[in-house]
Amino acid sequence: MRKIVFLISLLVAISVSAQDDMAIKSQVAAAITELREFIAIPNDALNADDIDDNVLWLKRKFGERGFNTAILETENMPLFFAALPVDDAKPTLLLYMHFDGQSVDPSKWDQPNPYEVVLKAPEGDGFKTISFDELNDDINYDWRLFGRSTSDDKSPIIMLLNTIDLLKKEGKEIPFNVKVILDGEEEKSSKPLPKAVKQYRELLEADFLVIADGPVHPSGDPTVVYGCRGITTLTLTTYGPVKPQHSGHYGNYAPNPGFQLAQLLASMKDSDGKVTIPGYYDGISINDTTKDVLKSVPDSDAEISDKLQFKSAEKVGGFYQEALQYPSLNIRGLGSGWIGDKARTIVPESATAELDLRLVVETDGNRLKKLVKDHITKQGYTLFDHVPSKEERMAHDKVVTVTEGSVTDAFRTDLDNPYGQFLVNTLQSSFGKDVIQIRTTGGTVPIAPFINELKIPAFIVPMVNPDNNQHSPNENLRIGQLAYGIKAFYGMLTSELN
Amino acid sequence: MRKIVFLISLLVAISVSAQDDMAIKSQVAAAITELREFIAIPNDALNADDIDDNVLWLKRKFGERGFNTAILETENMPLFFAALPVDDAKPTLLLYMHFDGQSVDPSKWDQPNPYEVVLKAPEGDGFKTISFDELNDDINYDWRLFGRSTSDDKSPIIMLLNTIDLLKKEGKEIPFNVKVILDGEEEKSSKPLPKAVKQYRELLEADFLVIADGPVHPSGDPTVVYGCRGITTLTLTTYGPVKPQHSGHYGNYAPNPGFQLAQLLASMKDSDGKVTIPGYYDGISINDTTKDVLKSVPDSDAEISDKLQFKSAEKVGGFYQEALQYPSLNIRGLGSGWIGDKARTIVPESATAELDLRLVVETDGNRLKKLVKDHITKQGYTLFDHVPSKEERMAHDKVVTVTEGSVTDAFRTDLDNPYGQFLVNTLQSSFGKDVIQIRTTGGTVPIAPFINELKIPAFIVPMVNPDNNQHSPNENLRIGQLAYGIKAFYGMLTSELN
Repeated sequence: MRKIVFLISLLVAISVSAQDDMAIKSQVAAAITELREFIAIPNDALNADDIDDNVLWLKRKFGERGFNTAILETENMPLFFAALPVDDAKPTLLLYMHFDGQSVDPSKWDQPNPYEVVLKAPEGDGFKTISFDELNDDINYDWRLFGRSTSDDKSPIIMLLNTIDLLKKEGKEIPFNVKVILDGEEEKSSKPLPKAVKQYRELLEADFLVIADGPVHPSGDPTVVYGCRGITTLTLTTYGPVKPQHSGHYGNYAPNPGFQLAQLLASMKDSDGKVTIPGYYDGISINDTTKDVLKSVPDSDAEISDKLQFKSAEKVGGFYQEALQYPSLNIRGLGSGWIGDKARTIVPESATAELDLRLVVETDGNRLKKLVKDHITKQGYTLFDHVPSKEERMAHDKVVTVTEGSVTDAFRTDLDNPYGQFLVNTLQSSFGKDVIQIRTTGGTVPIAPFINELKIPAFIVPMVNPDNNQHSPNENLRIGQLAYGIKAFYGMLTSELN
Repeated sequence: MRKIVFLISLLVAISVSAQDDMAIKSQVAAAITELREFIAIPNDALNADDIDDNVLWLKRKFGERGFNTAILETENMPLFFAALPVDDAKPTLLLYMHFDGQSVDPSKWDQPNPYEVVLKAPEGDGFKTISFDELNDDINYDWRLFGRSTSDDKSPIIMLLNTIDLLKKEGKEIPFNVKVILDGEEEKSSKPLPKAVKQYRELLEADFLVIADGPVHPSGDPTVVYGCRGITTLTLTTYGPVKPQHSGHYGNYAPNPGFQLAQLLASMKDSDGKVTIPGYYDGISINDTTKDVLKSVPDSDAEISDKLQFKSAEKVGGFYQEALQYPSLNIRGLGSGWIGDKARTIVPESATAELDLRLVVETDGNRLKKLVKDHITKQGYTLFDHVPSKEERMAHDKVVTVTEGSVTDAFRTDLDNPYGQFLVNTLQSSFGKDVIQIRTTGGTVPIAPFINELKIPAFIVPMVNPDNNQHSPNENLRIGQLAYGIKAFYGMLTSELN
């Protein structure tokens, strides 16, 4: 019985989609033109002139759509703010996107200018360039637009602007106040954002925040993300003889820094990859409801293993999505002496491990770093925050330098938050598909401190294809994602809160 | 009472030395001239023409002293052989030295041409160049001759030739047959030597072998070395995801190769630096007599610690000389991902440790490598001698690539060997000083396989200053070492076996 009801609702959804799809496709054509114009303005986050040029363009484009705009000065680059006229009776949605991009090295791109969009069609395992004239006959959603920030993160801004256009054409009323904050240095860690919240609190006041950045789940299905892991780092350096020594003359006499480091690191984890430092996972508990949501994400652990070529994953979580609910302790780099052709018969002078610790909301970065440092002390080491002097080296049997990186916090909105439910429902009815709900994504977003400062429920609603070559040469956007984004924004901006 | 006897014999020794010293100094002047001529013939072990030019010079110089000479062809560079006319009634001494040198980079030297000897006098912490004319007034034994192979190892050959001249002048009879084998590719690992023993066994037949290579003990005192450690290597590589992965998305899910490697390495040694792999030290026992000889070497463990800046040495041996009687297990290099400024938030694809194992005569290199490999297997790893394929990676929980370096054996002559006693006694009476007896030096000499193939007692009698910058730019010889070497050879070639 239930199956039949589901089937009917799916059919309704499809027919509704099919009807809207004509209007959306014609809007996609306009969006492509506007995106090409936007991409043509270089947006290297390291170049203030680039950022200014983009802000001026945005001011014009949002102004044309009836937004009030403001350029918010900060200690660094300005932020761009836009809002449709406010009606105090309506709830307020704050949208976050960014218009800066990673630097480009044109020599590594398959096109002359990464800021001049190139249209390509799939061919074999790759793509071939085609003329934009081809779009006059028909728009194939599998074609792609190649250029810097086509996916990260200019196209979501274009999707929003074109959704506004579509809503106007159709005379639709938006049941929300819509505010937009656009970041000009996300690729440089969005440093001014948390302060901006304090300075421009009233302007940014809202009931919930939607971040349109990053790719949808690899399945391509509609996705809502409730949180991200944070990050901090530690660097450990152990010491042997003060200068490298001949391994014949001093091997098994001068302390070997590699063995010391290996022993320190080995003492932090068991062979299943679980951190054995007491308290490292304190405060984390995953109830059955949460576990069901984690399990509903259509990941295949077997597929991940196959793709990354390992038999068994670490066992911090029982499966991939569960693992991401815990903090990590990762060796991202090891170095001592030389390896390979350059290896020399020496006792090296030092050995270094670079660690990164991905954080969840339960595990404060400074608390975790202290746990690791206390653990190192318990192994008999004297800790320094600098390269120890001769006196310091000779006063203690085991010395280690521990340097700490800054902390970027995690954020996470509750899975049962009503605004989250609203987003899931509107996406579900827009696409006629179950929405993938990701409680915590493994990576770190630089805007987490902004979210934690705003103190409103926040959700990432990604819009672009997962294989977009974000941050790399040949970044691209599947044209179908423009239709996806317009449809997603359309649903959000036309649905009433339950 | 004993003290007085000692004092008298010391005085005798000094007066004998003083008497000879005039003759030796005039021979040193000749030796300097001849050494400059010899150094002027470039001797890069990588250049066959260089080696040939040196062989022709040696043939002439040894011929002039009444030696019969032969150029022994090998698969690689020729060896040079010389012998004084043989008297079957006498015991035979075989002398080994080498005439090839390390390559030079003239831009790194403080003189225009490393093959053109420069005379320098101490000044402050360094040296200043002086004219060779200064030698006409007086030869200062603290002056130095700078040039490639002035110490390693052309000057011992010159010391021998000039000792022969001095013996002739004084009409002394040599109570030995003297054979000389000169190596032309010691700096390239002396590969042809062991085969040459098989091919030219009769020619090389001798009662004992004296190797004049390397520096005397840092104290500057006369030194006899009874053995050297050998060496072999192992390279271990553990594996994470097949390509580096984002540490947010895959940290604490994809296996971390750094932690695997740390756990493997940590399992091999205790925190005192002792190898915990069963059998690693099997067969080694140091009795009280041996321990006394080891302790008599005037090393100061406190000085080594101070110089190398560590509080506590590893505890394989109770003190420095004892440590060298055991095989080492040394991490000479570690590498995974990147460290320092280049560190990136990744789970690296692999982690590599470069190990070197210094060997002693009791510990066969292949046996030790097998012990380490068996130990790795016991830790749950499947071993490969190549980078594992996808199928191999996915068939086993823990995979490691282990590649093995070749083995250069240790050698060691017994401390109570009568030829060793002879050498100690002659050096003691030549210099009026206790002779430093080193049972095993930590480094490895490439001629160990030659020694083991010859199967005769072998001793290293080093002649040159310890601070000679061997293998480096600004290699030099303290002129006093020419006097030292001539005196040492004179003692050896004029004393009767007990």
